[in-house]
Amino acid sequence: MKLLQFATSSHLGRHQHLGALVDGTADGGTVVDLTAAARVLLAREHVSVAGIDALIPALAPSTMLAFIEGGERTRGLAERALDEVLTVGDERDPQGAQVRYAASDIEILPAITQPPMLRDFMAFEKHLLNVFPKLGREIPDEWYRRPVYYKGNTASIGAHNQDVEFPAYTEQLDMEFEFAAILGRDGTDIAEGRALDHIFGYTVYNDLSARAIQTQEMTVGLGPAKGKDFHHGHVLGPVVVTADDVPDPYALAMTGTVNGEIWTDTSSSDMTWRFEQMISYASMAEPLRAGEVFGSGTAGDGSGAELGRWLEPGDVMEFTVEGIGTLRNRVIANRERGGQHGTA
Amino acid sequence: MKLLQFATSSHLGRHQHLGALVDGTADGGTVVDLTAAARVLLAREHVSVAGIDALIPALAPSTMLAFIEGGERTRGLAERALDEVLTVGDERDPQGAQVRYAASDIEILPAITQPPMLRDFMAFEKHLLNVFPKLGREIPDEWYRRPVYYKGNTASIGAHNQDVEFPAYTEQLDMEFEFAAILGRDGTDIAEGRALDHIFGYTVYNDLSARAIQTQEMTVGLGPAKGKDFHHGHVLGPVVVTADDVPDPYALAMTGTVNGEIWTDTSSSDMTWRFEQMISYASMAEPLRAGEVFGSGTAGDGSGAELGRWLEPGDVMEFTVEGIGTLRNRVIANRERGGQHGTA
Repeated sequence: MKLLQFATSSHLGRHQHLGALVDGTADGGTVVDLTAAARVLLAREHVSVAGIDALIPALAPSTMLAFIEGGERTRGLAERALDEVLTVGDERDPQGAQVRYAASDIEILPAITQPPMLRDFMAFEKHLLNVFPKLGREIPDEWYRRPVYYKGNTASIGAHNQDVEFPAYTEQLDMEFEFAAILGRDGTDIAEGRALDHIFGYTVYNDLSARAIQTQEMTVGLGPAKGKDFHHGHVLGPVVVTADDVPDPYALAMTGTVNGEIWTDTSSSDMTWRFEQMISYASMAEPLRAGEVFGSGTAGDGSGAELGRWLEPGDVMEFTVEGIGTLRNRVIANRERGGQHGTA
Repeated sequence: MKLLQFATSSHLGRHQHLGALVDGTADGGTVVDLTAAARVLLAREHVSVAGIDALIPALAPSTMLAFIEGGERTRGLAERALDEVLTVGDERDPQGAQVRYAASDIEILPAITQPPMLRDFMAFEKHLLNVFPKLGREIPDEWYRRPVYYKGNTASIGAHNQDVEFPAYTEQLDMEFEFAAILGRDGTDIAEGRALDHIFGYTVYNDLSARAIQTQEMTVGLGPAKGKDFHHGHVLGPVVVTADDVPDPYALAMTGTVNGEIWTDTSSSDMTWRFEQMISYASMAEPLRAGEVFGSGTAGDGSGAELGRWLEPGDVMEFTVEGIGTLRNRVIANRERGGQHGTA
């Protein structure tokens, strides 16, 4: 399944939904509302109206996190409900709610919002080979010994097609083209051989970065913070593809463009550190929770810093991971500063 | 108010409560259950039974985070309910639930569980003056320019009196005596002059640290992770003292002992960076949420690394911040490894 969070509006305001992309892409395909589909199925199975009202919030929730937390219960119902509405072709659920939406008519939200934790690793050696010499350093030996990571602000997640504003404290903004796994289970001390079973699905990740402040804060040793965690600086989406639909996560072409020009042309096969190693490492003597995000770190050539190029207001980034999707965002000038940025 | 999360047990299993410490300390005083107290007050105000059932989950919740998120609504009810039961002396609420507990009869839980974020700063210059020369480095200039921080695993929070196990990957375990503020409001771009208004209250923080792996992982630049985030490695408690009961957070004696011997004898007046600066800095172009934890970083002499001493299994740490409380924990050998640690 390709799952996504989306929003619609009515005279009652804004509504959040969880949907499945059933054909096409997140830019032009068809999305089925999984809550409406579940109501269709439960009614057809003769569950009482009161029973449907009681079951729906738990079994067909409108957020990705609650869906993941529900495990096989939410997943199983969603699959059967999707089969039902695709076979029968229902347009409305028993409450009169719309079942299908054109992707172009809805607002796509972040793939997941407020996950319990967001960890970002450094899996691609080529990124380090590109970056460290520019900093006058060699790749630290420790990078080859353990899959290191930093932790990001879980409230700073952006969505597909959302404009990302230059933070007011930044002259230069950079992108980072990544691939992310989302956990489907809680766990601690997870053996590497069982760690893939803990992955719910995969999405595309643009880890926008304010390089000047990032470099400055990192000299103290506590890792990046203001360099990464500004509003919508961690963009995830457009969809989460469940792990059963990704036969080999380490054989996916990764293509990144800026204003249509290819900056990155690589593959997830280039990951030195694999998600199962990251999960096993992070879980040592430490609790992991369903819904957590594990970022791969930047693909080789996946950032401007590697290429000596900077984003300017108006630039559009498009990151495609084969079989997962295309994540598109534009960077825009800081509204308070009136566009005085970006020319390096 | 001095607020705390605690647990009790019955034939129905474990129950979580939110309470107020009304006399004595968290080790021997009296705790009022704020949910039971709220039921007493609402019944005395002639609210219907159905109304009480509807109001209690929102207005008198059993977790610190929900209480903080409720803002003036939860706080105001708790203050009035506490006055009522302390004046009238009720022993039971309308449902028959116990109103008062002896602190010695309950299990104290972490001051807050699963806060939205946990940031830990480095406010005390003396800690850096002690530590950096041991690493063969000077204090980085950037430390004087901005209040840097790392972010911890919000699921790894420990409680007062809870034993903290050496992680299996650690030979040496260290403590860090800190002081923490907990936010009471959401906010972004918070001016320093208004930042104290965003603090709900204060607690004591022991940031246990596995130094070997911390030093290794930090060479790559992404900050500490496995060195900090093991089970119960961020201990917070025993109580949260609301900000109105802390007239000057920068005039509090801080005394830390190990097995009764004083290791740390300092004051919060020694903080170079203040919470209002940390909050203002972290909030620049970035969303902060009610319930987030801001750690001060280690007080001068507040860790073994500064003193060339290491904890051994069985050692008991007691950290006292004047007017806030005393946080006590014992470190214990790793159960799987059978106690083979700790002698440095």
